[in-house]
Amino acid sequence: MAETYRVGLLGHGTVGAAFEQLLSERAEQIAHVTGVRPEVSGVLTRSRGDFDAILADSDLIVELIGGIEPARDYVLRAMRAGKHVVSANKLLLASHGEELWSTAREHNVQLRFEGAVAGVVPVIRVLQESLAAAHVDRIHGIVNGTTNFILTEMARGGTSYEAALARAQELGYAEADPAGDVSGEDAAAKMAILARLAFSTPVTLDQVIYEGIEHITGEDMAYARDFGLALKLIGTAERVNGGISVRVHPAFLYPGHPLASVNGSFNAVTVESDAITEITLSGPGAGGPQTASAVLGDVISAMIPPASTPETTQSLPVVADVKSAFYLAMEVDDEPGVLAQVAEILGMQGASIKSVVQRGIPAGRARLVMVIHPLLESRFYGAVQLLARMPFVHAEPRAIRVLDEEFTD
Amino acid sequence: MAETYRVGLLGHGTVGAAFEQLLSERAEQIAHVTGVRPEVSGVLTRSRGDFDAILADSDLIVELIGGIEPARDYVLRAMRAGKHVVSANKLLLASHGEELWSTAREHNVQLRFEGAVAGVVPVIRVLQESLAAAHVDRIHGIVNGTTNFILTEMARGGTSYEAALARAQELGYAEADPAGDVSGEDAAAKMAILARLAFSTPVTLDQVIYEGIEHITGEDMAYARDFGLALKLIGTAERVNGGISVRVHPAFLYPGHPLASVNGSFNAVTVESDAITEITLSGPGAGGPQTASAVLGDVISAMIPPASTPETTQSLPVVADVKSAFYLAMEVDDEPGVLAQVAEILGMQGASIKSVVQRGIPAGRARLVMVIHPLLESRFYGAVQLLARMPFVHAEPRAIRVLDEEFTD
Repeated sequence: MAETYRVGLLGHGTVGAAFEQLLSERAEQIAHVTGVRPEVSGVLTRSRGDFDAILADSDLIVELIGGIEPARDYVLRAMRAGKHVVSANKLLLASHGEELWSTAREHNVQLRFEGAVAGVVPVIRVLQESLAAAHVDRIHGIVNGTTNFILTEMARGGTSYEAALARAQELGYAEADPAGDVSGEDAAAKMAILARLAFSTPVTLDQVIYEGIEHITGEDMAYARDFGLALKLIGTAERVNGGISVRVHPAFLYPGHPLASVNGSFNAVTVESDAITEITLSGPGAGGPQTASAVLGDVISAMIPPASTPETTQSLPVVADVKSAFYLAMEVDDEPGVLAQVAEILGMQGASIKSVVQRGIPAGRARLVMVIHPLLESRFYGAVQLLARMPFVHAEPRAIRVLDEEFTD
Repeated sequence: MAETYRVGLLGHGTVGAAFEQLLSERAEQIAHVTGVRPEVSGVLTRSRGDFDAILADSDLIVELIGGIEPARDYVLRAMRAGKHVVSANKLLLASHGEELWSTAREHNVQLRFEGAVAGVVPVIRVLQESLAAAHVDRIHGIVNGTTNFILTEMARGGTSYEAALARAQELGYAEADPAGDVSGEDAAAKMAILARLAFSTPVTLDQVIYEGIEHITGEDMAYARDFGLALKLIGTAERVNGGISVRVHPAFLYPGHPLASVNGSFNAVTVESDAITEITLSGPGAGGPQTASAVLGDVISAMIPPASTPETTQSLPVVADVKSAFYLAMEVDDEPGVLAQVAEILGMQGASIKSVVQRGIPAGRARLVMVIHPLLESRFYGAVQLLARMPFVHAEPRAIRVLDEEFTD
């Protein structure tokens, strides 16, 4: 029976509740990875729990209250009591980061905050660990899912800002009061944190210039399409003339830009550095389960020094035959009935045609190219063997897999 | 003066030489982050150095020899001697991983290998740390830069496989003997490692089904364009029917797929899990400096337990005025000479027009929309103020930034 690791939870809103559930679901696996079983030892909300009692009874504090006070006070007291802290509080870190980080160093505890920026996209860990000694030149980020969702809606449907915002609210991507998101302030707090880590210089929210998306019109989007541009709310932190610039504003991107294709409520961050050219990280932005997953990753990291690779926990069979969609190209006689026969042979093996192109080529032949819906590879190749033997098929049929039909627009 | 941390370097090829240089360039910054200054204490190549002497004189061993033996023997002996090991050797890990990882656990040392998969793209760290307790459902990866470069060339230029391979060799993206890459074997070794970490089940290279790109024709590419598909060499590791499937083969992707736009020698990995939906990580694939950067990140992590955020090292000025390109939209009188006057006013402020669209709208007016080359924002807004005062300009001119002209195709 693994020893228990006691996690005190401050705050029990969307993220807090998702975190508590995820922790209990994954406790077994975590015990395997870390040798210690985590459990929530106490929960503090406005109506229940006592901070001092929870603190005394915890090995680590998870702060998901948000806002400056009392979160700041609790986090400082926890660290002074020698407890590690995991927080997803971007406003707190962007406003009082140096105070918190110096307290962590002084008391030799960890303060982790992956959940504060870009949800489950592991940009904090990558900046602090993978790129710990890299010379970062620039960061570009789409770090607010609400505004990216609204802009994506506007671009897709030619809708107005107001209509897209209403839709985002309806689907739960925007709050009833969306000001913090659409003004760019939320993104600005996140960019302050990223700039601090990337450039090792103090940066606070009040130093970040930001502009929101409230003034963007459907007409801007339409004209921009003429230039091949996509509009995003972009956070930038970069070195300029011996200083740095940290800012958030709507910006058009050319199609080749790695952030141009980040759509909906997704977040993404691009880190540029001479040694690495650039890394792009993308994934779902803050949402209850995603942020909870980032918080849990931090909790696990705080529980143990970096582990060697744990023993395998299972011995799963490695399967050879799976379902795939296929592209199938054949050279056939250019005669009536050939396509029907091909479809019949495919159908016998359970293969159904999704789309097809037929073009005449010299010598009374046609090139028949199709995409086949997913089926077991063994059955598909069975059909191909049958087809290859048909007198109206010339040369070997060519088959190439097609990935993930679900991504079709 | 910081204490010294001695790094023994095995192998001095492209990556080894790049690593040695990067370590010396970044030693100062690393000493700040870790409190300890790393230095190369010995180098082993075919012609110089003695393994036992280097081992005795090192705190950590970096293995960049490649291949199975003698790399396996050296890595095992280093760990048995209580030294941490950082390796970029995918073949060794995909073939003898369990032996190495169990030796690391037994001797309580770290074995890190970020550089073995996807160069600087931090997929190993994300799987082992951020997603340590996540239930991963599927991984898709473009994990071989050579083949992705060749396929990108074929798609862009309509070139044959042979011509694209020759071009990759000319530019140094493919070896003189490209068999390991184009056959899919290199990608298969990487997928074996990712599958092992994601599913916590033993997977070795010989269990991975792989198919290369040698048989892909320019004609496949051309027909695929009719279906809107992009061809990539895709590694897949996924759960199927209580087992797992690990395989590498060419596959077409629909345009919405996160890997469809990964071009040239870039690598990218998508990790899918219920809790997180999906994360995509992308960046330059293995190259000397990129792999060296991944190796250095591992060395730094091995040097210290996860640090609290280090003190800031500098106090950089936060700059407000930077250069940007702009989209500028105005409603103007639809008369001759207006565009010339606009251009003149812009020119006075140093703003030059990159592209322009003018369309008539009702009431004798025109909508004039343009993209302006980058200039200091203060100068651009100066021009906008001048324009707003002109009698032929109606309503407020609308300005939105355009990011990164360099990404224009």
